[in-house]
Amino acid sequence: MREPTDADWLESAAKLALRGHGGAEPNPMVGCVIVQSDGSIVGWGYHARCGELHAEAVALKRAGIRAKGATAFVTLEPCAHQGKTPPCCDALIKSGVARVVYAVADPNPLAAGGADRMRAAGISVEQIYSVACERVTAPFLTRIRSKRPWIIAKWAQTIDGRTATRAGDSRWISSAQSRAMVHRERGRVDAVMVGIGTLFADNPHLLPRTSRSRRIPRRIIVDPRLVTPSDAQVVQTVSQGPVAIAALSSSIHELSDERRKDFAAAGVTFIELTGSAMESAHRSFRGLPKGSMKKLMEHLYADGVSNVLVEGGAGLLGALFDEDLVDDAWCFTAPLAIADGAGAPIATGEGRTLMIDALRYELLNLRRRADDSMALWRRKT
Amino acid sequence: MREPTDADWLESAAKLALRGHGGAEPNPMVGCVIVQSDGSIVGWGYHARCGELHAEAVALKRAGIRAKGATAFVTLEPCAHQGKTPPCCDALIKSGVARVVYAVADPNPLAAGGADRMRAAGISVEQIYSVACERVTAPFLTRIRSKRPWIIAKWAQTIDGRTATRAGDSRWISSAQSRAMVHRERGRVDAVMVGIGTLFADNPHLLPRTSRSRRIPRRIIVDPRLVTPSDAQVVQTVSQGPVAIAALSSSIHELSDERRKDFAAAGVTFIELTGSAMESAHRSFRGLPKGSMKKLMEHLYADGVSNVLVEGGAGLLGALFDEDLVDDAWCFTAPLAIADGAGAPIATGEGRTLMIDALRYELLNLRRRADDSMALWRRKT
Repeated sequence: MREPTDADWLESAAKLALRGHGGAEPNPMVGCVIVQSDGSIVGWGYHARCGELHAEAVALKRAGIRAKGATAFVTLEPCAHQGKTPPCCDALIKSGVARVVYAVADPNPLAAGGADRMRAAGISVEQIYSVACERVTAPFLTRIRSKRPWIIAKWAQTIDGRTATRAGDSRWISSAQSRAMVHRERGRVDAVMVGIGTLFADNPHLLPRTSRSRRIPRRIIVDPRLVTPSDAQVVQTVSQGPVAIAALSSSIHELSDERRKDFAAAGVTFIELTGSAMESAHRSFRGLPKGSMKKLMEHLYADGVSNVLVEGGAGLLGALFDEDLVDDAWCFTAPLAIADGAGAPIATGEGRTLMIDALRYELLNLRRRADDSMALWRRKT
Repeated sequence: MREPTDADWLESAAKLALRGHGGAEPNPMVGCVIVQSDGSIVGWGYHARCGELHAEAVALKRAGIRAKGATAFVTLEPCAHQGKTPPCCDALIKSGVARVVYAVADPNPLAAGGADRMRAAGISVEQIYSVACERVTAPFLTRIRSKRPWIIAKWAQTIDGRTATRAGDSRWISSAQSRAMVHRERGRVDAVMVGIGTLFADNPHLLPRTSRSRRIPRRIIVDPRLVTPSDAQVVQTVSQGPVAIAALSSSIHELSDERRKDFAAAGVTFIELTGSAMESAHRSFRGLPKGSMKKLMEHLYADGVSNVLVEGGAGLLGALFDEDLVDDAWCFTAPLAIADGAGAPIATGEGRTLMIDALRYELLNLRRRADDSMALWRRKT
């Protein structure tokens, strides 16, 4: 067996980092492994919860005096920032580690500078490229750079690319195992979002059904014309987690007193979609001005939302793809064919006329889950 | 390492059998492994080409006198039939093998009875279930039972389920590696088929481009209203392999003298689709009477076609799914999103209103090919 390389240790750190998903946000997911010169692991940690210890601090605590002379591998440049916890670069200096290897530079100007400070203290500091570390840090980098949440789209489809029959029937396209995965994800994100078409077709509650829920997502219905029925499951379950309807300003202003009262009583809030729909548009999403989705996402980010799980339907996904706002796409394909020309498609948008203009993704993960195939596509940047 | 079981040997035989694809048809793909009591392989073979030696004969030839007392593992029950080659059961008896294990019973009444004849000769004969053997024999069983070719559908799609943009642009959705795989398959089947929409959108020649072509497929255009242009690539390349247009009888009879002359000069033949389209139907495939595709396939089978590779488009695939005529579906998904509501879908058919009525498939193979995901779905019977 070959000796683990620096890149291998960074990959291990990335795997640790991922364990923080659902706890760490809006902080980055970070993992750290401390390795002695004989190759033994003396400490490891990940950032489990925003406000609590950083990955480096957890790993150093485990290592104790065994950190002296060791190498610390960290997915992200150790911070030089006194936040809710003290700067990690200082803790590393104090610990006596001889070397620090990290993969991704800290994009946050407030927290950056850790590498330089450690070098000044005599530690050998190296930045090494690691695809695994880049991947686990990507949601954080996107948030910092774009001031919007990380957006995950999820859908289940038949092999012929339909998400529901013409009658709106989609229960159950995907396996119980695939659905369990979606429920786990609902319990790790700040927001779950669907379009009004999906609300009418499926009447979902959008709550995580899992014993391991890490946060309760706010639920957002994108409903430009504000036609959400007040007896919808999602409206009736506000006590279990907040619900907001994103609608055109005009639709919100024209809401009848009765409906307004119903929503207020239920505890539903509104988010205004800017601009007004074209008069002629009768499709829910077709009339929305370009940029609406980006503004909605920026609004959510400002409101503390780190990531959004979008569960369809075709209109909403089309609008998001049109504005290039889908970062990750989880695609579950069930072993079914309906061949229905009138069945629900995955995403209807303004689209692209030439294939060369298509948005490019990469296949991060491909596997079988029960009888389904499951692919994780990530936007290629 | 554990000893190989009977099931393992049958799986090896199945893998060998698959090597005959493109050569064996219309005969079944058959593989055979001969194993001595000490676990050593003394012979192996597969049916490489129709009219030539069967798998058992190839394996026995390799084994020679070392077959005496050994066990022969065969994917399919050894034949008791004097065809172009002598009965395999007699060859096995003559060889002195002590035991024969096979997976699938011979469905051909002419060739069946091999197991009994070997038992009568004192050989220990067992039939053991093997999923791998069932899979490799499925095309043959379907042909025998349904008197139609084995039908493979192939398509390349974006992650959002489109096979082309609204402008018909589909070059190149899938990777060069995926396309190479399709070319290899074209060189192993008896027929390649597309619908008229695909002919107009892509103007394909449908010939295999591979150095390892095992047969030249006949090319079939399903063109109910007979609007194929006589300067289409497929028409212009008849010298490289036969081309037939499947059209409604009425369309064939109403063909202008000039067009008829053009097609005759090029060497294109016609296949009559029975029934007449509904007057009101303007979509190519929507007006076809139910059963048209089945009749077309039966006609092709009677004409010596063992398998058909269908390369789209949506109308033809929809018609085939509607009549439950898709046995295998190769689905290549490229890392692209176009989110175009007007882009080409995978299959438009009459479809199914309830998900519970969907055709059920199983995932035989799932893998990455360059940047694409590739799934092989097989109809679950």
